[in-house]
Amino acid sequence: MQALVFDGELRLEEIDEPVALSGEALIRVRKTGICGTDLAIVRGYAGFRGVLGHEMVGIVEACDDAPTWVGRRVVAEINVACGRCSRCLANLRSHCERRTVLGIRGKPGVFAAWITLPITNLHEVPLSVSDDQAVFAEPIAAAFRILEQVAIDRTTEVAIFGDGRLGLLVTMVLLGTGCRVTLIGRHPHKLGIAERLGAEVRLFDAAPRARFDVVVDATGSAVGSAAALEAVRPCGVLVLKSTLAEPPSIDWTRIVVDEIQLLGSRCGPFAPALRALSAKQFDPSILIDRTFPLSEGVVAFAHALRHGALKVLIEP
Amino acid sequence: MQALVFDGELRLEEIDEPVALSGEALIRVRKTGICGTDLAIVRGYAGFRGVLGHEMVGIVEACDDAPTWVGRRVVAEINVACGRCSRCLANLRSHCERRTVLGIRGKPGVFAAWITLPITNLHEVPLSVSDDQAVFAEPIAAAFRILEQVAIDRTTEVAIFGDGRLGLLVTMVLLGTGCRVTLIGRHPHKLGIAERLGAEVRLFDAAPRARFDVVVDATGSAVGSAAALEAVRPCGVLVLKSTLAEPPSIDWTRIVVDEIQLLGSRCGPFAPALRALSAKQFDPSILIDRTFPLSEGVVAFAHALRHGALKVLIEP
Repeated sequence: MQALVFDGELRLEEIDEPVALSGEALIRVRKTGICGTDLAIVRGYAGFRGVLGHEMVGIVEACDDAPTWVGRRVVAEINVACGRCSRCLANLRSHCERRTVLGIRGKPGVFAAWITLPITNLHEVPLSVSDDQAVFAEPIAAAFRILEQVAIDRTTEVAIFGDGRLGLLVTMVLLGTGCRVTLIGRHPHKLGIAERLGAEVRLFDAAPRARFDVVVDATGSAVGSAAALEAVRPCGVLVLKSTLAEPPSIDWTRIVVDEIQLLGSRCGPFAPALRALSAKQFDPSILIDRTFPLSEGVVAFAHALRHGALKVLIEP
Repeated sequence: MQALVFDGELRLEEIDEPVALSGEALIRVRKTGICGTDLAIVRGYAGFRGVLGHEMVGIVEACDDAPTWVGRRVVAEINVACGRCSRCLANLRSHCERRTVLGIRGKPGVFAAWITLPITNLHEVPLSVSDDQAVFAEPIAAAFRILEQVAIDRTTEVAIFGDGRLGLLVTMVLLGTGCRVTLIGRHPHKLGIAERLGAEVRLFDAAPRARFDVVVDATGSAVGSAAALEAVRPCGVLVLKSTLAEPPSIDWTRIVVDEIQLLGSRCGPFAPALRALSAKQFDPSILIDRTFPLSEGVVAFAHALRHGALKVLIEP
């Protein structure tokens, strides 16, 4: 089968189709999305070598251990846990010491015609949710992770730094709590999307200081993270969603003196993500920039890397 | 009166006695302690100029607005809040935008014969608590702040990085929860104190990685903060107690990937501190290194700056 492989260079390769192991399903990939992490890996992050990609919707084509899954349309959690280590037993499966991570760490990713995944990672997609929406389930789940970690309600003043794909998805999810959301970014057309969703918007250079109860950093840049910290009020929370190659140049003393909480946030729960999509709480497919066939995967990456690009999809 | 003044250089000066304003008490200082923050100010931190010092026990000698305070022995909260700004009204008085801070920001400190403070900042010291114990009330309150911010109980694995004065006080306070405490430091004689208190101890170079539920950084050094972060398990908490001149060189990506919580922590509640002292839960006076008269204040600072010094007191 064709697959988009990174081994120091990104290229389309002909590789063997994967074989489902015990407890796994064989999935025919229907749509996939390019994520900021994929772009970071191509620039050297995480040292991953292999088939890239972790955002997908597909159809289970074979599943010896649970045949009722066959034919179902699914999205999938990306961490494959051992289920036996102390972290798995402490209900920290996404932090399993021996985990592999789809297309990021030790597990071939979704930019291919076929993938295999443990049945326990699968979530069936409701009929009312289109492929173009379901392919966003993983990053939407990552946005819902924030609500598992921080109490946000109608009285909370939230700022989201970064008007890229993730920042806009976080905007959609957090607006669902009824809180006041301000999206802070550098791209007027993306800020316009947030405004139509019901958020307030600000250009990056006009970001308020020491003002918000909760700030989410989805900038992916050291300068952005530092500005996000500046915007948190004393005793407020800064949620860190972006991995950075270098630590930002932040005012460390301010964290202590203003008793600020910094909170790393990674993968999240699929159930509320699929419920929100099924309930038409928001429509992530408005963020689709362009869809490429897998045969043009290298071009798709180049397109996703363009300044200001929104979500680029790849279809096997 | 004599006072220990810092104006780019530390020296003993003859200055006017302070006059209590409306709502303030005039306090005769009995004992004071030199804190790491005082030593940092002398090295340039916070840009403070004036009478140094914020740890003290004293006697109220005059108090026109509340005469029943006269004659009482007191310790005092160090943040003087305006009581009217949005932060004060949100019950964040120690983060008041217009606050002064005793001996740190806009308010003459305690290394003097007399000070004035708002009555609302005072706490009476129980008879059973000696001056040598009460003078530790402020840093003990700062240690109790951790218990306001993080859930710690008998099942929590805690590490404290830094075997200095603050690290040892935090050890005393956290041991009171029944949790398992490991103090990690560089000074065998200080680690010995912690061991006699009931803590486990480790030399800094043998600190475990990714192991503790809660880690408290009381090192006051960038290298120490970075090592403290390494010791936190995934989804664990790093409490930051030390202000640093420069941000530490930390693995920022690990905060996100391991979903670690960093929590700045400053001043704390005096009531549990005084209850713990009154109940003889621990005896902080074992940490006293030496007591100097105020006339030898400059020598006292030099003594406190020596490598390995414990708590140095100054007596007016």
